[in-house]
Amino acid sequence: MSELPLLEGVLKYIKENNISFCMPGHKNGRGFYNTSIGREFVSNILKIDITEVDGVDNLHNQKSIILDASKHLSKLYGSKKSYFLVNGSTSGNMIMLFSSFNEGDKVLIERNCHSSILNGIIMRKLIPVYLENIISEKINAPVCINLEHFLQALNKNEDIKGIVVTYPNYYGICSNLKFIIKEAKKRNIKVLVDCAHGAHFGINENLPESAVTLGADMVVTSAHKTLPSLTQTAYLHVNNDKYIDKVDFYYNAFLSTSPSYIALCSMDYARFYLEKYGSSDYEKLIEIAECYRNKINSIRGLRVIGRKDIVRFNSKEKNAVSSVADIDLTRYTINLEPGYSGNLLLKYLRKLNIQCEMSDNFNLVLIFSPFNKKDEFQRLYTVLKECNLERIKCKKSNVREYGIPQSKMIPFEVVDAEKEIVDLNNSCGRISGASVIPYPPGVPILSMGELIDRDVIEVIKYYVKNDMDLIGIEDNKIKVIK
Amino acid sequence: MSELPLLEGVLKYIKENNISFCMPGHKNGRGFYNTSIGREFVSNILKIDITEVDGVDNLHNQKSIILDASKHLSKLYGSKKSYFLVNGSTSGNMIMLFSSFNEGDKVLIERNCHSSILNGIIMRKLIPVYLENIISEKINAPVCINLEHFLQALNKNEDIKGIVVTYPNYYGICSNLKFIIKEAKKRNIKVLVDCAHGAHFGINENLPESAVTLGADMVVTSAHKTLPSLTQTAYLHVNNDKYIDKVDFYYNAFLSTSPSYIALCSMDYARFYLEKYGSSDYEKLIEIAECYRNKINSIRGLRVIGRKDIVRFNSKEKNAVSSVADIDLTRYTINLEPGYSGNLLLKYLRKLNIQCEMSDNFNLVLIFSPFNKKDEFQRLYTVLKECNLERIKCKKSNVREYGIPQSKMIPFEVVDAEKEIVDLNNSCGRISGASVIPYPPGVPILSMGELIDRDVIEVIKYYVKNDMDLIGIEDNKIKVIK
Repeated sequence: MSELPLLEGVLKYIKENNISFCMPGHKNGRGFYNTSIGREFVSNILKIDITEVDGVDNLHNQKSIILDASKHLSKLYGSKKSYFLVNGSTSGNMIMLFSSFNEGDKVLIERNCHSSILNGIIMRKLIPVYLENIISEKINAPVCINLEHFLQALNKNEDIKGIVVTYPNYYGICSNLKFIIKEAKKRNIKVLVDCAHGAHFGINENLPESAVTLGADMVVTSAHKTLPSLTQTAYLHVNNDKYIDKVDFYYNAFLSTSPSYIALCSMDYARFYLEKYGSSDYEKLIEIAECYRNKINSIRGLRVIGRKDIVRFNSKEKNAVSSVADIDLTRYTINLEPGYSGNLLLKYLRKLNIQCEMSDNFNLVLIFSPFNKKDEFQRLYTVLKECNLERIKCKKSNVREYGIPQSKMIPFEVVDAEKEIVDLNNSCGRISGASVIPYPPGVPILSMGELIDRDVIEVIKYYVKNDMDLIGIEDNKIKVIK
Repeated sequence: MSELPLLEGVLKYIKENNISFCMPGHKNGRGFYNTSIGREFVSNILKIDITEVDGVDNLHNQKSIILDASKHLSKLYGSKKSYFLVNGSTSGNMIMLFSSFNEGDKVLIERNCHSSILNGIIMRKLIPVYLENIISEKINAPVCINLEHFLQALNKNEDIKGIVVTYPNYYGICSNLKFIIKEAKKRNIKVLVDCAHGAHFGINENLPESAVTLGADMVVTSAHKTLPSLTQTAYLHVNNDKYIDKVDFYYNAFLSTSPSYIALCSMDYARFYLEKYGSSDYEKLIEIAECYRNKINSIRGLRVIGRKDIVRFNSKEKNAVSSVADIDLTRYTINLEPGYSGNLLLKYLRKLNIQCEMSDNFNLVLIFSPFNKKDEFQRLYTVLKECNLERIKCKKSNVREYGIPQSKMIPFEVVDAEKEIVDLNNSCGRISGASVIPYPPGVPILSMGELIDRDVIEVIKYYVKNDMDLIGIEDNKIKVIK
């Protein structure tokens, strides 16, 4: 074992010198190097790592520079109050759930929401009611909230206290948040938005609308995913004065009292960048991305999902409300012809020094930011064009990846229940004692307290067989309730 | 308002170019610059800010380089399992409390513990039983757990499930943890240790004993406070296999799923540094610190608390168990003669470009690391020697700063109770709706649910008057239960 496995492992990776079509948004530091104040940040980065001394404010008792920076942030996004999160969108999701709901509250969530939402549901002891997503056969992925099911769920559960919406999802696809907010407000239901992938939304008219502007009660956006901010940074936006008191309490609880000033300064910088250069830079980025979208679409076997495609996800019935509202044009979801694997394409591109963000068996996701250069898009196009698709061939699969297993126990009851480890093959009919989550996208295929059936075992085996990073399964064993 | 208030404010501060006698332990980056691998870390720092791609492991599903680094960490500290915390000791304290106790459990805590412990007590819905500290009249500060009171509390509350010990406290003073663990084990009570300030303990025989070695069930240590690791980084050490399952769950919940690799790598580096150079470097540091301790003690009006002083905090009775076990010689608590102010001395030194860690009205605390140079100690000595004490004169105060106000509501009941804001002068007899916490040291003088009496109002006014950073009081107003 190396004397410094983690540091040396990371240094080894960065020597690959990959084109970054993945997080973070600063793209190997470029987002900082392109302004003089950004360069000053970089050249002083270790000195910036200070503790809370007189004159540099206190994150948990803001009175000067952090307060001022928060006001800028709030103004840009149009919130009542905005917060810097040094513990990622994870902490923002926790704070939203803890400050909006009380123990035992019933909350609508998407079955395929991020694991931090599920952890929050467990820890706040909430009762989740799962919302169905529309599954696109074309891309074999959940594309948006099924609005019909949403309305049914509201009518069936009059005691629903709120809804958590993922906007956009990992594929950049945006549910019809406007409609959801309108219907929720009618019933006095809170709308919380996990907008981790949409910190740039609304800054240019070609981007999807901002969840804050649309009127959600609280919105979490990751600063690092798309903006020039360091990994693990995020923003929380609160749209309603009456929640601020509770948010302040949980903000203290979920965030370090020794916050990193490097992280904080990078968030201030990302907001500044977005405000000053965001609109024009995103205009240019979308133009380049659109140009190469068309080029890549001319390659046999590949299709980058675009605005034209998402229209097809909506109901064909007359007067039906569109379930999909928009798509983020600053990322590519490259959908592969059946029989070819997104996972294998990701590995193939990595070998050629192109790092993508995420793959599943049918799609490949790439995240761009204004710091990606045109020649990087050109390189991607060339490599894809030259790729012999035979290299990424895979067996067609009939696995239903997005079913919702039957719930047998409320998730929070599972945490303290007695559990045992059994072989996956012997787990059919048992209740799951832990969530099984592929990373990325971090969406559980089996959640705590759910019934393990043949279908879900097949899906898990499929992930294991394809050597994907799967939390909750070790050596083909699974944790179940005793 | 500046366009970039936070970043520009911090850049302005670092231009002061102060000697760092405060956190973090790397001392403006020096801790990294002194090894070749450290320099490689610094020169690649933005590139190191990667997301969890293939080959660099996953913090929440460790299988390769993070797992290996965790094993090194665990081996060095002698734990069953150790964890990297990217959200500071705050998250470690939360994880300890959530994984060790169940709702309604009665837990012994020090009244003057860190606010994150109190937040954890509230969020896990625990019943706190406050342990008294011995208050030293000499330094007018709590110095250690009163062991007599500890034994009384154990005998009085047979349903106690655990104890949380701060080891060391902000003044570097260590309670007799060995005795506490022995008595707790007799009664099958869990011992959790907030060792935020003691990540270096045990690496050299002149340092206090490691809390892990002493047999605590779980121990949290801040990596950044004393070691060459970035701010907001910490370690959690678990000594008992049976807790690991629950710790794993809460670790996922309290830590970002987009952890900073810069933070993670710095923690790997700090462990490596401690293992390779810690023993000899701390030997040298203590030698220098002892030398200047003696020199500063020759200055009229000042006394750096040392091993000889702490003996006096213990009971004079024959066969009495010592309440104080040790003191960390790598920090100074400079106690001032009555009539002179620690707060003013901190400000005075800052003007002369010496940044101290913390002050109260009677003491000044400075934190050293092996990266402080001898000439910095010399500079401190010279400045202190030349200081005209008249500059830091203050009115003698009779404020009882460390009383424990009467508890009227269990803290977790307060969070959801209705509250109002009243003038501090009109708050006598009301129940506090928020904690009032001076930063540093982050120890509440009034905790949620406690009775506001004349004494505590006097203490709060005293802090406000002395312009100290006080959370929970705004414009002389306080939040109370309606």
